[in-house]
Amino acid sequence: MNNKVEPKTLSGFMELNPDDQIILDNMMNVIKDTYKKYGFWGLDTPIIEYSSVLLAKAGGETEKQIYRFNRGDNDLSLRFDLTVPLAKYVAQKYNELTFPFKRYQIGKVFRGERPQKGRFREFYQCDIDVIGDGELSLYYDAEIPSIIYDVFKRLNIGRFVIRINNRKILNGFFEYLKLDDKSSDILRVVDKIDKVSIDDLKAMLGDYKIPEDKIDMILNFIQIKGKNDEIIDSLRKMRVDNESFKNGVYELELIIKSLREIGVKEEYFTIDLSIARGLDYYTGVVYETKLVDYPEIGSVCSGGRYDNLAEYYTDKQLPGVGISIGLTRLFYQLKEAGIIKDSYKGCADIMILPMIDEMGRINEIARRLRNINKSVSVCYTDKKFKSKMKYADNCHVRYVIIIGEDEINNNYITVKDMESGTQEILKIDNFESYFKGR
Amino acid sequence: MNNKVEPKTLSGFMELNPDDQIILDNMMNVIKDTYKKYGFWGLDTPIIEYSSVLLAKAGGETEKQIYRFNRGDNDLSLRFDLTVPLAKYVAQKYNELTFPFKRYQIGKVFRGERPQKGRFREFYQCDIDVIGDGELSLYYDAEIPSIIYDVFKRLNIGRFVIRINNRKILNGFFEYLKLDDKSSDILRVVDKIDKVSIDDLKAMLGDYKIPEDKIDMILNFIQIKGKNDEIIDSLRKMRVDNESFKNGVYELELIIKSLREIGVKEEYFTIDLSIARGLDYYTGVVYETKLVDYPEIGSVCSGGRYDNLAEYYTDKQLPGVGISIGLTRLFYQLKEAGIIKDSYKGCADIMILPMIDEMGRINEIARRLRNINKSVSVCYTDKKFKSKMKYADNCHVRYVIIIGEDEINNNYITVKDMESGTQEILKIDNFESYFKGR
Repeated sequence: MNNKVEPKTLSGFMELNPDDQIILDNMMNVIKDTYKKYGFWGLDTPIIEYSSVLLAKAGGETEKQIYRFNRGDNDLSLRFDLTVPLAKYVAQKYNELTFPFKRYQIGKVFRGERPQKGRFREFYQCDIDVIGDGELSLYYDAEIPSIIYDVFKRLNIGRFVIRINNRKILNGFFEYLKLDDKSSDILRVVDKIDKVSIDDLKAMLGDYKIPEDKIDMILNFIQIKGKNDEIIDSLRKMRVDNESFKNGVYELELIIKSLREIGVKEEYFTIDLSIARGLDYYTGVVYETKLVDYPEIGSVCSGGRYDNLAEYYTDKQLPGVGISIGLTRLFYQLKEAGIIKDSYKGCADIMILPMIDEMGRINEIARRLRNINKSVSVCYTDKKFKSKMKYADNCHVRYVIIIGEDEINNNYITVKDMESGTQEILKIDNFESYFKGR
Repeated sequence: MNNKVEPKTLSGFMELNPDDQIILDNMMNVIKDTYKKYGFWGLDTPIIEYSSVLLAKAGGETEKQIYRFNRGDNDLSLRFDLTVPLAKYVAQKYNELTFPFKRYQIGKVFRGERPQKGRFREFYQCDIDVIGDGELSLYYDAEIPSIIYDVFKRLNIGRFVIRINNRKILNGFFEYLKLDDKSSDILRVVDKIDKVSIDDLKAMLGDYKIPEDKIDMILNFIQIKGKNDEIIDSLRKMRVDNESFKNGVYELELIIKSLREIGVKEEYFTIDLSIARGLDYYTGVVYETKLVDYPEIGSVCSGGRYDNLAEYYTDKQLPGVGISIGLTRLFYQLKEAGIIKDSYKGCADIMILPMIDEMGRINEIARRLRNINKSVSVCYTDKKFKSKMKYADNCHVRYVIIIGEDEINNNYITVKDMESGTQEILKIDNFESYFKGR
């Protein structure tokens, strides 16, 4: 065959080398395991859905980015997030589910964005949501960030802060200022606080014909700083006579209190009155999570409370609260920033290098090690010792077991610790004890 | 909003209820964990690829079934198996990989088959392959079925048998009969042995103008029965003077021997000279796995040895051996056959039902239980006791912890074992001991 096809991968589609893949998989396992620890059901919805279902709400950007195609008479699309499929699922199976319905889903989603560094067209989202039937206790709004706290503690990628705000406070404040017709404009401007100067914000708000005294009140408000209790105090002292505002402050306070009770340490969460998270989806608490030492990475995990998950599919009122980690992008950014380094974690714990032709004893040793729950690769290749050692090295295994004629005849095995470089001899009848607990 | 979109899912796309999803996930974890125990690297290739890459080899059925669409100037397709992406990956990253390259991949693939009961258009494949560079030791051909043995033992879905054959024996035998120009016709007929009678096979072979004496030899050959060693003996006694045949018998014998050494019990594997597995891909050993008590299910895991993984992308000679479990279909069939029943496994180990308003103590108890690695769901909903108990029941948790005023005031918690129905009182300061080891 001479006409070879070039084995290329689409740009914007992550495809890792085996050792990087292990790191990504480990991160995914931590996230999944933590979600499960809080009693979430795992869901797995199809990657392909009817376009009419996926696009029931969407418009604008989503519609441009979606992968959409016809097959037979059907207009199909690849899912672009995990929230819309959840809404479909809950509306469809409403009678079979038990509420509050807590679900996690980890899966690939697809968005045909303009390709650029660090942006992917196929990427993993790791979502949790709690969906209520008609109503949903505020304590779930506190549980969500405590789960995120556990996830990022266990991911062990450095200091992080979960920023919390409440849309009710923002909306109530704008109502109070009689600017509620401009609230989405204001929120859009306020959302830029990390990227532009206060003077720029002022100018941008001015463009919307907001009187200067009100602009100052808005800017003072979103810049309220301090410890969490101090911020709550400052908000109270503003004496804003608006129900939504008061409600929002009450909710924030309860969430802060619960976070402490659940065991989240104070330095890991902070009220940040400037975050709004999008324009029309969230209705209550909103969250963002940032890595303290890498502010340039932006939010690595965001979410909030919404009033009605599935309004496009059902008349049922289904409030929810949820959060999403964009794992593919997070992994890419951590790798770029040098936060995760190649750890000494290979395809197996142990590799056996047989220096004999008969595999009977070799296979028996491998089996005994797997019985004590070790992952074991046997290098069956018929090569010289040096080349086998190189193979073990490339596979990043921690221990190498060497078995030649001498070992067989004298009933021992030779073990090399690839990290320390030390070599030991173990008796054949109880070599397991060396590996237990390692 | 009155114009609701119907929340429907495409036919041929599996979407499970939460409790079934847990069973599928557990099966997937068993498969993944076993693959890892043998030292396979995990891969994750994109779901979307260039059509030119995915269809480099394919034709016929594959081309009809593939999900293919244009986006911008690109002709794209969804992967229809995990082998072609592996071939692409290995050809592309040849210089970065270390051989033999052992990889597992578990992921969804897509085939727009005509919808029918038990057939899915989106389904999970769980693959392992070992790829050699130029050559690959025969011991890997024995390792593969031993892994499958571990998987199905751990899946605990009843008795199974791994059927093993070698294409070299078949091909050699046809060469010996001077029927090698008809070997693919014969194999296609022979493949039907489980579905039609011997007389029908005879007639079908007759249609290919094969002389009657040779038809009898073929039918005698594929019906050789007995214990594994007896079959090897029978093959030897045929005194077929053909290199490929002899080679095949030698390989089969070595594989059988290795399987025993690795610890696979004799009743779990058998030589079956009638299996061929497709027409032009496999070149050496081939495997099928059947559930003994459910023959109607057919092969639940198949694979074999091939000479050249990536010939459409590279000049490198890359022989391999691998196997695939079609998990979605397997799950469906097991469920239909009643082999897997709803186990008492819910969204969490423990559910806490707070019968008080203050969540401080509740959250502390939840945290302590998560610290000893239990999954815990707190029912924060403000409902009556009976309705909370019903929630716990619907969530299939094993233990329920009830905490009301009395419990708080007297420093204890009430635990109900939902399986036995018994209720106990535990002191607040060391309730963990009750749950440890359960």
